[in-house]
Amino acid sequence: MKRQTETKSLTPVQIEEKSFEIITSELEGTDIVINETVSVRDIYPPAESERILQVIKRCIHTTADFDYARTMWFSESAIEKFDALIDRGAVIVTDTNMALAGINKKALSEHMCKAVCFMADADVAEEAARRQVTRAHVSMERAMLLTEPVIYVIGNAPTALIKLREVYEEGKYIPEFVIGVPVGFVNVEHAKELIRQTNIPCILNMGRKGGSNVAAAIVNALLYNM
Amino acid sequence: MKRQTETKSLTPVQIEEKSFEIITSELEGTDIVINETVSVRDIYPPAESERILQVIKRCIHTTADFDYARTMWFSESAIEKFDALIDRGAVIVTDTNMALAGINKKALSEHMCKAVCFMADADVAEEAARRQVTRAHVSMERAMLLTEPVIYVIGNAPTALIKLREVYEEGKYIPEFVIGVPVGFVNVEHAKELIRQTNIPCILNMGRKGGSNVAAAIVNALLYNM
Repeated sequence: MKRQTETKSLTPVQIEEKSFEIITSELEGTDIVINETVSVRDIYPPAESERILQVIKRCIHTTADFDYARTMWFSESAIEKFDALIDRGAVIVTDTNMALAGINKKALSEHMCKAVCFMADADVAEEAARRQVTRAHVSMERAMLLTEPVIYVIGNAPTALIKLREVYEEGKYIPEFVIGVPVGFVNVEHAKELIRQTNIPCILNMGRKGGSNVAAAIVNALLYNM
Repeated sequence: MKRQTETKSLTPVQIEEKSFEIITSELEGTDIVINETVSVRDIYPPAESERILQVIKRCIHTTADFDYARTMWFSESAIEKFDALIDRGAVIVTDTNMALAGINKKALSEHMCKAVCFMADADVAEEAARRQVTRAHVSMERAMLLTEPVIYVIGNAPTALIKLREVYEEGKYIPEFVIGVPVGFVNVEHAKELIRQTNIPCILNMGRKGGSNVAAAIVNALLYNM
């Protein structure tokens, strides 16, 4: 019980520090696989690989699932491009209110940015029903009309990624950044693959895993360490 | 590409059905371990074991992580007790706005119930800072003052579970139901153990895993199948 008493009196900040120490220590000696390549540090400059590792560690922190050390995908200079968009006052558009709730608004407002989600808007539901498309599909269309640069943060709806690929394919619109980590068993792996095959700057988690919590964790990891 | 085209045209409801079919089929032949016992169907009556399996499958659906088939804990007659509380108009109190966002409000309102979260209230933060306790600790105290029966839904803060155990221990207050699935590396396993050792009706996920998404998934699984 001694250990428990000691840790019980830690502050939330200390608990987070200790958690990251544990994650770092358990990752030691294991292969961290990014972009299907074993060594992150070999393929990225030190500053970028450090930021990438922070993202991976926060995904593990939010799920206690070490699979995230083997399945993530970062497009070229993804971190740099994310930072540049934040510096330009980008709007983060999520595909769930849950991801929106998980993004640290204080960190975001310190960078003079904001986050929105159109999924629960009554007129989005109406339009989706009328056109027989998903609400995520309509939400993406709304986001494309924003005047600010948009960072798409997708933790749930593969159809959001499919829509973004469609407009990219048609040459109508090039998304400036996509965080694509929907979770699921149907269409999900395919939808992430559709984004990976493009030149859209992105951070993905390949395979079935992801979720709104993971999407929010990625945004927070990036914001905290800018 | 044929398969993808076929699944692409599915409605969200059909996608969910198909996902549960995949989960059910992948679980077939594997041991589902509940309360450290291999066969759910042996230790629970059929109706209850079906509801328990629905909860587990929805946890897997929300994480794509099959570990949830091996680590969950349901106290005796947990499902029946949850249903009875919902029938009495229980308030669901979460420890994050993210879990609150993930709970299906329509399903909840159909049962004439509501969900709240005190974590982001300014006076909770103030009081926590002044007393040098966590916001989760203060939130639990607020919840205990509610006149309705309370279902505690904890996906993040082990200190919420620790507080609930404390009041239980002191004989001051007996929580009527706890869904305890905080995720993490410090205090988390211990905090879940503290609830398991009591007579508090509960659903837990032992070990490190869990999260706000999992907490919401458990509530939704229970509500959808009442």
